[in-house]
Amino acid sequence: MTLGVRDSRRVLRWDEEVDVVVVGLGAAGAAAALESTRSGAKTLVIERAGGGGGTSAMSGGVLYLGGGTSLQKACGLEDSPDEMFKYLMASCGETPDEVKIRLYCDGSVEHYEWIVAQGVPFKPVFHYGCSGEPENDDGLVWSGSERAHPFCDIAVPAPRGHVPQMNHQAGPLLMQKLVAAVDASPARTVANHRCVALVQEGGATVVGAIAESFGEERAIRARRGVILTTGGFIHNDEMIAAHQPRVRQCKIRVGAEGDDGSGIRLAVAAGAATLHMEAASISLPATQPWGLKRGILVNAQGQRFVNEDAYYGLLGERALFSHGGRAWLIVDDEVFERPDYPREVVAVGETPSEIEGELALPVGSLESTLALYNRHAASKRDPLFHKGSDYLQPLTKPPFGAFDCTTEGSIYAAFTLGGLATDPDGRVLDSEGEAIPGLFAAGRATSGISVGGYSSGLSLGDGTFFGRRAGRCAASEPLSEFPRR
Amino acid sequence: MTLGVRDSRRVLRWDEEVDVVVVGLGAAGAAAALESTRSGAKTLVIERAGGGGGTSAMSGGVLYLGGGTSLQKACGLEDSPDEMFKYLMASCGETPDEVKIRLYCDGSVEHYEWIVAQGVPFKPVFHYGCSGEPENDDGLVWSGSERAHPFCDIAVPAPRGHVPQMNHQAGPLLMQKLVAAVDASPARTVANHRCVALVQEGGATVVGAIAESFGEERAIRARRGVILTTGGFIHNDEMIAAHQPRVRQCKIRVGAEGDDGSGIRLAVAAGAATLHMEAASISLPATQPWGLKRGILVNAQGQRFVNEDAYYGLLGERALFSHGGRAWLIVDDEVFERPDYPREVVAVGETPSEIEGELALPVGSLESTLALYNRHAASKRDPLFHKGSDYLQPLTKPPFGAFDCTTEGSIYAAFTLGGLATDPDGRVLDSEGEAIPGLFAAGRATSGISVGGYSSGLSLGDGTFFGRRAGRCAASEPLSEFPRR
Repeated sequence: MTLGVRDSRRVLRWDEEVDVVVVGLGAAGAAAALESTRSGAKTLVIERAGGGGGTSAMSGGVLYLGGGTSLQKACGLEDSPDEMFKYLMASCGETPDEVKIRLYCDGSVEHYEWIVAQGVPFKPVFHYGCSGEPENDDGLVWSGSERAHPFCDIAVPAPRGHVPQMNHQAGPLLMQKLVAAVDASPARTVANHRCVALVQEGGATVVGAIAESFGEERAIRARRGVILTTGGFIHNDEMIAAHQPRVRQCKIRVGAEGDDGSGIRLAVAAGAATLHMEAASISLPATQPWGLKRGILVNAQGQRFVNEDAYYGLLGERALFSHGGRAWLIVDDEVFERPDYPREVVAVGETPSEIEGELALPVGSLESTLALYNRHAASKRDPLFHKGSDYLQPLTKPPFGAFDCTTEGSIYAAFTLGGLATDPDGRVLDSEGEAIPGLFAAGRATSGISVGGYSSGLSLGDGTFFGRRAGRCAASEPLSEFPRR
Repeated sequence: MTLGVRDSRRVLRWDEEVDVVVVGLGAAGAAAALESTRSGAKTLVIERAGGGGGTSAMSGGVLYLGGGTSLQKACGLEDSPDEMFKYLMASCGETPDEVKIRLYCDGSVEHYEWIVAQGVPFKPVFHYGCSGEPENDDGLVWSGSERAHPFCDIAVPAPRGHVPQMNHQAGPLLMQKLVAAVDASPARTVANHRCVALVQEGGATVVGAIAESFGEERAIRARRGVILTTGGFIHNDEMIAAHQPRVRQCKIRVGAEGDDGSGIRLAVAAGAATLHMEAASISLPATQPWGLKRGILVNAQGQRFVNEDAYYGLLGERALFSHGGRAWLIVDDEVFERPDYPREVVAVGETPSEIEGELALPVGSLESTLALYNRHAASKRDPLFHKGSDYLQPLTKPPFGAFDCTTEGSIYAAFTLGGLATDPDGRVLDSEGEAIPGLFAAGRATSGISVGGYSSGLSLGDGTFFGRRAGRCAASEPLSEFPRR
């Protein structure tokens, strides 16, 4: 289906008139709709699937929040907006949006309470020992590289993964509560409707949207604004090939099938600029359980390339983008343990040299890498990559083994991080950085907090946080003019 | 200055009416204007500087051409469109545009003759021993990684850098000839005029352009099309920060000051899609003269990361994007020679360990890297990166030295490769891959042949080649409708 803009002169009558149209009912859409309707705007949500939830409902439900939330406090843990800010500025890629990150950190305590107020439960128990989603219903986890080099020297580490109370995979619960809140609100939701065009007045102000359902179009006037919360583009093969060719190697593309970039494409047709289309979250769960962080990750040259105690999102990014998805985790008998995620032991040998042979690594390469690593690990040092001393011990006890961490043999779970350029109130920006009147966006349809160096929970976090802001801002926009001809 | 679209209803009268407007008189613009006017279209060129030339006139003038051009033949060298195609498909980044590359290779012999027919001289002498621009007026050079791994095993290598006959820096000569050809043609050029807006009819067809000169605007009706040949965005700090943050580390940004992304921004405002905004050419002339290819390039971990005989564009990309611009070229007394480009020897020592100390590399890292390299180089092998055997010899003779190849201490010359999405006829595409009627583009305002893994001469090459196609296509477009109201 071809998406685009429709000139307002071609819309002869409106089938429905509201203040705000929200396109897509995932976490960002729910947050936008809730705040829009609470601000007094007549709000219509259109969702292309049969019901709300979207990619958020398929996720682990982790929200990256902090700064001293009541959940962190209930777990006896300290945090501050400033430490959270320092971590996110250092970890979220090379050009993070400082203004958004500042707002996000300063508003995080309140935002957590808002999530709770929608009926989302959190169990005040800190779960130690896993990255990201816990395997039980505990409420707080480590979900980033806070304790790893270089971040541990930049900001005081604190766990910030807030997980709704649910045994295994809390995304469905989170979305059940948020969608229920929307249903209980004055906002009206229509399912099975796709937005196929934005209606634009004179190539400038967005004054409505065209929704399509089973072949029929409806023209919906949005007097104050249209908010696009349509998700990313991980399932759009052409966009992936153009912007993220490496992602084609990944086994798992994280997202509901609606993540085809439709909102990005609609807004671009209306003159919007995009940002960081090359950025992706790439999870490589090579070091779960954490004991495996004592192993070393090597590339096809038998070289290490990252501190293995970094978050699995960072391991995946480095392995995929800088080393072509060719990586193996090398362990000795002492640190060998069964991984949480299915991953094959693809080589076993009495010497590093045997492992080289089995993996077809250059002769002498792994031997050389291990010798240097062991020499420093013996004194709890890692001058190459600065892995934390908890995970430093020489790998000397045969047999040695290699876990397959290649894109062919291991989980690489990818989703897109780039998208529409927006201001902190969700206004969609053009290539000059100016707002396109009447057009808003939030969630993974936009370039968010993280533009690289992902920490789990940032998408649900910034989607709901900036979704709320977009909802409030759209609701308070002046009525757009729509000249009769 | 804010660029954008102007709704045609806001244009009350046209100051001038032509068939085709070309925006920018660099190499792509000259080629577009020449072919447009030769196709019978009334053509107006607007150039923001005081005269034509643009970035092309500041370049080395190398055109990447091949497939058996008369120049290659005159030098006694064989080539074919298929071998050229195989090389470009393998080397030009991860998602090269196959259709464009096929056309480019198949049309290269003819295109060379066309360049010559514009009065550009080439001396039929093959210059061996340098990468890219020769230091004399010889006509043919190696300007890519054709003879390096993995490309040498994919396509039969041939030198394809075609350099106009000029002692040192042939870009000015190339542009002098092309601009003279435009001047001699019926096309009219106005200098000191910037395009500040595209005029769009109902948010769709581009029907004209607004040119501004010393504060005054002129509305120019383009009955058949507007061709944007405005260059890349290396001098737009905001776009660089957003799309290419690493480039901010580079000492040299290659481009005339007009390379501020203006054409890209204009077209995006009109609904155009962009491609590969993250792609850049990064030249790191670490291995000039070629004898220095016998050294090894190491990163901040003391590890090698590339075959040192690859083209300097590839060295720069790898060093900057994967290793943060932290690199040093290590040599021993035997391979030491004075480099062509100013680059400091930042460490000298009797042992690798002394070099480690001076460069603050991890203890034992360089020693370990050299030991492995030397072990294989002794038998003319490089199983890690497959450097060619000509450049493989153990580095064992003290003193050892390190050339500074960091972004602080060395030349890193950068320009942008991404830009507007276009079809092979230069039609600018929207986010659905459909042409925006009346809008064309060529040169570095567009995403070109190379979207990574640059070979010198590809920008002048694809700019002129696809500039010509855009000129012909625009000239043959039907007259756009422009309703009177």
